Amino acid sequence: MGKLIKKSRLLNTPPGTMIYEGGSTSNKVKITVFDYDAGHFTETVVDDVEQCFTYKDKPTVTWINVDGLTRMDILEKLSHCYQLHHLVLEDILNINQRPKAEDFESYFYIVSKMVSMEEIKDEVNEEQVSILLGSNFVITFQEEKEGDVFDAIRQRIRKDQGRIRKMGADYLAYRLLDAIVDNYFIVLEKIGGKIETIEGSLLVEPNTGIVHTISALKRNLIFLRKSVWPLREVIRTVTQTDSPLIRPETLVYFRDIHDHAIQAVDTIEAFRDTASSMLDVYLSSMNHRLNEVMKVLTIIATIFMPLTFITGLYGMNFNTHASPYNMPELNWYYGYPFVLGTMVLVVSGMLYYFKRKGWF
Amino acid sequence: MGKLIKKSRLLNTPPGTMIYEGGSTSNKVKITVFDYDAGHFTETVVDDVEQCFTYKDKPTVTWINVDGLTRMDILEKLSHCYQLHHLVLEDILNINQRPKAEDFESYFYIVSKMVSMEEIKDEVNEEQVSILLGSNFVITFQEEKEGDVFDAIRQRIRKDQGRIRKMGADYLAYRLLDAIVDNYFIVLEKIGGKIETIEGSLLVEPNTGIVHTISALKRNLIFLRKSVWPLREVIRTVTQTDSPLIRPETLVYFRDIHDHAIQAVDTIEAFRDTASSMLDVYLSSMNHRLNEVMKVLTIIATIFMPLTFITGLYGMNFNTHASPYNMPELNWYYGYPFVLGTMVLVVSGMLYYFKRKGWF
Amino acid sequence: MGKLIKKSRLLNTPPGTMIYEGGSTSNKVKITVFDYDAGHFTETVVDDVEQCFTYKDKPTVTWINVDGLTRMDILEKLSHCYQLHHLVLEDILNINQRPKAEDFESYFYIVSKMVSMEEIKDEVNEEQVSILLGSNFVITFQEEKEGDVFDAIRQRIRKDQGRIRKMGADYLAYRLLDAIVDNYFIVLEKIGGKIETIEGSLLVEPNTGIVHTISALKRNLIFLRKSVWPLREVIRTVTQTDSPLIRPETLVYFRDIHDHAIQAVDTIEAFRDTASSMLDVYLSSMNHRLNEVMKVLTIIATIFMPLTFITGLYGMNFNTHASPYNMPELNWYYGYPFVLGTMVLVVSGMLYYFKRKGWF
Amino acid sequence: MGKLIKKSRLLNTPPGTMIYEGGSTSNKVKITVFDYDAGHFTETVVDDVEQCFTYKDKPTVTWINVDGLTRMDILEKLSHCYQLHHLVLEDILNINQRPKAEDFESYFYIVSKMVSMEEIKDEVNEEQVSILLGSNFVITFQEEKEGDVFDAIRQRIRKDQGRIRKMGADYLAYRLLDAIVDNYFIVLEKIGGKIETIEGSLLVEPNTGIVHTISALKRNLIFLRKSVWPLREVIRTVTQTDSPLIRPETLVYFRDIHDHAIQAVDTIEAFRDTASSMLDVYLSSMNHRLNEVMKVLTIIATIFMPLTFITGLYGMNFNTHASPYNMPELNWYYGYPFVLGTMVLVVSGMLYYFKRKGWF
Amino acid sequence: MGKLIKKSRLLNTPPGTMIYEGGSTSNKVKITVFDYDAGHFTETVVDDVEQCFTYKDKPTVTWINVDGLTRMDILEKLSHCYQLHHLVLEDILNINQRPKAEDFESYFYIVSKMVSMEEIKDEVNEEQVSILLGSNFVITFQEEKEGDVFDAIRQRIRKDQGRIRKMGADYLAYRLLDAIVDNYFIVLEKIGGKIETIEGSLLVEPNTGIVHTISALKRNLIFLRKSVWPLREVIRTVTQTDSPLIRPETLVYFRDIHDHAIQAVDTIEAFRDTASSMLDVYLSSMNHRLNEVMKVLTIIATIFMPLTFITGLYGMNFNTHASPYNMPELNWYYGYPFVLGTMVLVVSGMLYYFKRKGWF
Repeated sequence: MGKLIKKSRLLNTPPGTMIYEGGSTSNKVKITVFDYDAGHFTETVVDDVEQCFTYKDKPTVTWINVDGLTRMDILEKLSHCYQLHHLVLEDILNINQRPKAEDFESYFYIVSKMVSMEEIKDEVNEEQVSILLGSNFVITFQEEKEGDVFDAIRQRIRKDQGRIRKMGADYLAYRLLDAIVDNYFIVLEKIGGKIETIEGSLLVEPNTGIVHTISALKRNLIFLRKSVWPLREVIRTVTQTDSPLIRPETLVYFRDIHDHAIQAVDTIEAFRDTASSMLDVYLSSMNHRLNEVMKVLTIIATIFMPLTFITGLYGMNFNTHASPYNMPELNWYYGYPFVLGTMVLVVSGMLYYFKRKGWF
Repeated sequence: MGKLIKKSRLLNTPPGTMIYEGGSTSNKVKITVFDYDAGHFTETVVDDVEQCFTYKDKPTVTWINVDGLTRMDILEKLSHCYQLHHLVLEDILNINQRPKAEDFESYFYIVSKMVSMEEIKDEVNEEQVSILLGSNFVITFQEEKEGDVFDAIRQRIRKDQGRIRKMGADYLAYRLLDAIVDNYFIVLEKIGGKIETIEGSLLVEPNTGIVHTISALKRNLIFLRKSVWPLREVIRTVTQTDSPLIRPETLVYFRDIHDHAIQAVDTIEAFRDTASSMLDVYLSSMNHRLNEVMKVLTIIATIFMPLTFITGLYGMNFNTHASPYNMPELNWYYGYPFVLGTMVLVVSGMLYYFKRKGWF
Repeated sequence: MGKLIKKSRLLNTPPGTMIYEGGSTSNKVKITVFDYDAGHFTETVVDDVEQCFTYKDKPTVTWINVDGLTRMDILEKLSHCYQLHHLVLEDILNINQRPKAEDFESYFYIVSKMVSMEEIKDEVNEEQVSILLGSNFVITFQEEKEGDVFDAIRQRIRKDQGRIRKMGADYLAYRLLDAIVDNYFIVLEKIGGKIETIEGSLLVEPNTGIVHTISALKRNLIFLRKSVWPLREVIRTVTQTDSPLIRPETLVYFRDIHDHAIQAVDTIEAFRDTASSMLDVYLSSMNHRLNEVMKVLTIIATIFMPLTFITGLYGMNFNTHASPYNMPELNWYYGYPFVLGTMVLVVSGMLYYFKRKGWF
Repeated sequence: MGKLIKKSRLLNTPPGTMIYEGGSTSNKVKITVFDYDAGHFTETVVDDVEQCFTYKDKPTVTWINVDGLTRMDILEKLSHCYQLHHLVLEDILNINQRPKAEDFESYFYIVSKMVSMEEIKDEVNEEQVSILLGSNFVITFQEEKEGDVFDAIRQRIRKDQGRIRKMGADYLAYRLLDAIVDNYFIVLEKIGGKIETIEGSLLVEPNTGIVHTISALKRNLIFLRKSVWPLREVIRTVTQTDSPLIRPETLVYFRDIHDHAIQAVDTIEAFRDTASSMLDVYLSSMNHRLNEVMKVLTIIATIFMPLTFITGLYGMNFNTHASPYNMPELNWYYGYPFVLGTMVLVVSGMLYYFKRKGWF
Repeated sequence: MGKLIKKSRLLNTPPGTMIYEGGSTSNKVKITVFDYDAGHFTETVVDDVEQCFTYKDKPTVTWINVDGLTRMDILEKLSHCYQLHHLVLEDILNINQRPKAEDFESYFYIVSKMVSMEEIKDEVNEEQVSILLGSNFVITFQEEKEGDVFDAIRQRIRKDQGRIRKMGADYLAYRLLDAIVDNYFIVLEKIGGKIETIEGSLLVEPNTGIVHTISALKRNLIFLRKSVWPLREVIRTVTQTDSPLIRPETLVYFRDIHDHAIQAVDTIEAFRDTASSMLDVYLSSMNHRLNEVMKVLTIIATIFMPLTFITGLYGMNFNTHASPYNMPELNWYYGYPFVLGTMVLVVSGMLYYFKRKGWF
């Protein structure tokens, strides 16, 4: 399951100290620059971040994607070039950030979480994506791996599909957020599949592993909720902004992903309710099995205890010669058949009693 | 039960790609046009959607009902004719949409869910209904089957019953939404009947199937809530609009269905509480049965174990000849009656003890 | 318990169709007219509703109480005379209405629920009361039986007690709502008494019937909450109105019943918490009893199983003549006392063990 | 525990009827008048309420404390003198009032609940305190006993401690409310102590009485919450008033008790969570004990049942003379030692099995 | 665990009485003064608080840190010098204060809680920190020990690191609050570690201690929530102030810690959900173990009870000479092998039955 809190080296360090907190310490940072307008398009992988700065004053849309957060110098150069607030830089590096949106007048700063689910370990993972939206640029920061959810967007820019090349930086930001939100649904679909699997096995053969599976499911949902809940708020903030960075005609798109984010929250809540309900079913079926086991035990004990008592009775060694009162049955002509008959009667009586109690 | 999330092909495709996601792939799309005012009425099933466009500039109310979402071309033609935003088109096709209402100035876009309950499988199903309300037109899109809930409205238009023919397009939209909301109550009534059935069997004979029934019930309620909760909000949005598309005299009608939608939400919540309460009753009656079973076992064991011990005692083979201390009881004149008497005493004592403990 | 949803014939019928949905189909409708001001008072039971219309333009306060909702013609005449919106008429007839208040400028329309509790079946029932408040009239509609809760008010009008005859129609409306809200407390007191009874029996002798009683209690509370919760909102709406129908000096009275309604909601919530808490106590006392039963069983089994084993041991038929190793104890002089002594030791050991475990 | 609703004689009586509903019917009403300003101070116990009226037009602060609500005439005289709304009079008498604050322009009417906890019965009781705040007077009404929580305030007025004598009537009202709120913390501290006691005994020796104690605790918390929750709102209303009765410099004091009231609500919620958590611990420790008991039973049964079977086997009376197949073991030279050895093996095997299962 | 309410001596004492309520009564109070601006810096430990007053009118930033709340005179002198409201003084001393922020125009008063977690006892403790922010001064009051969380800030002031020396008093206040909020994450990380430990042991070997650990965890979370929840509100109040004490450029910093505080609340909620989920897993694994134990018992009993019955049967002492019906099996040539065979059949049957029931 996703860890609810990552070990952080940033805590207790003063604000203003910039330390990247991700797990990997490899120095590889990949910077990709897309520069486009309706008419032209260039895609460059740059070594030196300063190569990006030439795009700054062009009227075209520039998308700088930074993969990896380990090189302080790159971040500081970018920060200097685009005049970012130093708190923004710290927040980009602090990967335990809560999704949020802040309006710094000359740019918008959006923090969101990209989720993925590893099939094998059933773990939901998240990667922090920071998006800076300016009037003619979008800068994105990702933790480590190249974010696949953005590949479709890259493809559309390259091939000039749809309206993306005709629109501004705000539309690009919308497309990135939209890809992130849509991705939640992919994870939710996987979880939905898992729920159906669990429900199937609940009907057939409830076993103890199910509790762990349901519990893992619940934790994944808690984890997802923790990142999608504030994301909803983030997008709402954007839709209600009066910043000139987001043009009125783009607002309708943001409202659309706002609806999707609420839908994701609704689905998570419904899944949580379902998981609780499945746990109830599991517990009551466990209870039911215990009842069944106890019934079998009770039936067996209730039938054989009286029988064993009777056999014990006639296994006593009273001296039949010493007195006529001492177990004369032992010497009766039909003594043994009589005892066997008694036993049959006892068993029949018990069975009738259980039948009437509805134990079969 | 209704699936909380449908497998979707739209995810990960860029916005702007229009793919219908419903289950059926049959190409059959049925377009029906009602055109009416107080004085006249025409009903046409059109093959080519372009036939509808003649109605566009007439002052009469035009209701175009599109059954089936598989023909892209039809949607695009309609979209072009009525100048719909392409996001609206995408939303019409995305049948996992959350109920919502959006004001696009020249038209209102409302997404809602029509529910139905299959008696046999106890499953609540939903079908997405998109309603576009313009100044003189209403366009509705349904997933597949002809929506029966609208039949009564069609009938009233045809026969000029009530005030529908005298009113505008906004009143028609109200009537459509009203039919959808009323339909929730029909499903809720069925669920209410089911709850009464379960309560009856809880009193008589609690069996393990009940948990599954209650659990299915709960999931249906979670499912219903997921679609009626936002619907309430949708209608509230409409009642508070200042759009000229909805005339002041129609607002009172929308307020009325707003009350109904809240009523539906209240009922769902009350049903959920009731379902939880029934589960409590079931679990405690299971618990009670376990107690009963264990009491029977304990009573039997507590009575027969001492008896069996006594019989075992006198079944030992100590040599009574070797010593006067070796089980002289075996040779007593009243040995056997004495032992039987002892047993009667033991049983009586035990029964008295259980009586006092209140186990009978 | 009160049904959470009543079978309704209105569903799926178009708005504008007026069908009364109550259970009774008897045609008896009783119309009573009170007309009064500080100086005079008349009380009439009218056969024909048209007799009421003479009061319409008088400056006196007129209270028309309609008992029974089966005569369409009466309602329509009233509606015509007082120019009621046809939606109001439909709502009066739809007895599954949620409590609500609506301002139609020339009159206020208030829907509320009058509750009662049948002692024997422990069922809370409700009856819908619609109140129409105009500048000089109040019209009330009840389902069937004469509403006893209004009797005290009738008495005060007749006898000119208090200030009711000196005040306007808005004060009368307040008095009617106040009677309805006070009535909730009477039902809540009965439920409070029931809770105390259950608590008493929980302490003495928890039995399985308690779960059903608590469950019925909970359903009654769910039912009450469903009608008093919106009522609170209704009264708040009235207190915040700026309609001239409700005079400023009357507002303080409505604020007072608003406080009472909140108090009722608080009490219902507290009762629900208490009911849940009682269920916990019941379940844990069931659990405790199971533990007790199991302890008795275990003590008995743990004492007698070893004893029975020992008796079995010396009941074996090994041939003591065949070898000196074959059960020489049987021929010992103190064999039997030795075995009895061993048994006493075993029992003492077991009892000591249970003592130390704290099982007594 | 505190009763959630008191039997009330007021219900169903028309508003305007003034009946005191407290338990006691003794006629003793004690009226104490404090009249003070920075320079002078008088304290009088008056027999006739009319003696108070002389203070009405003095510029000094007058505090009239009425203990006991049984003398209608006193209340009516006061009401007449200070021109109170008759609804206020009714509310003072109705001791089931929800805490509330109302601004009647010439005076403020505040209802609050004074709580106390009887150590022996573990019951939280409440007494309604009504406070009327005018420009130069405060009138307080209490149910019966002299309110000890106000004693400290009386002392300070008498001895001219602190700033109370220098301040106006609004400051006195603040001090009274502050005493009432502080008193909640005294009760909460007692409950906190009780929680610690329960936690201690949960760790040592969970017994069935604990559930009843926790349940009583919960009810007390439900009861407290029911009176402190609205009190919070009451004080907030006062802090946000723009009434000239409360001077700006006094508002900061009211804000301070508002914080305290929120603190009380927080503490109650935290205690409720703790109580639920304790119940979980109790239930799971009960469960654990059941498991332990069952393990002992199972170990005993699993060891002795096979042994008893073996002894039974060699207790059978097959005729060894009739055939060499009939229990030749009985005549073996090492027959008995062989059987004893077998038994030791069986026991060892079982113990090993339990060990591996981790049952010891 | 943190106590939810501390024993307080302040209760019932009149406001205006100033009594410190902390545990320690030692008189040691340590006052440290930092005075700095971009150019200079002095750090002084003063004996007499009056030494601080020289800084009052300097334009530099003065940070007075008071460790220990036992010396009334010091507080009163400070209060007099900085013209603090006497309610503020009382609140500083009342260490059960709820976190809050109040604007007294010439200064801001902020109460917050500094938390720490003792590794060994798993207890979360809190210490109240009061912060007074003026135009050119910050005064902090702590309960007893020197607050380590502020050490990093002291260091940065001394060494002129970052921008702290260049900024005003409001930035210093931000840094102090930031240190306090960051500290919550350190405690949350420890709790996160504890949760992982518990989850590990839940998978391996659930034992009864886990419930107590989870319960302690929950109480710590309840405790943390009680102090961080209002802190969030406190910081929001500061971010929305229009007080000139907090410069617009500092507001962005406060918004940043507001996000962190929300993040802390989210994490606490997620941890609480996780703890509940773990309890469910524990309980169901307990349940599962009980089922396992009962199955073993039932299998053993069901196999050996019939066998013991058979051996008992042939241990009866019927006189085979008295009649040919009396246990002729005892004299059969293959009597014993036949009985053994029967037993094998019975065991096989039982094992087959259990197999089919899925009990292995």
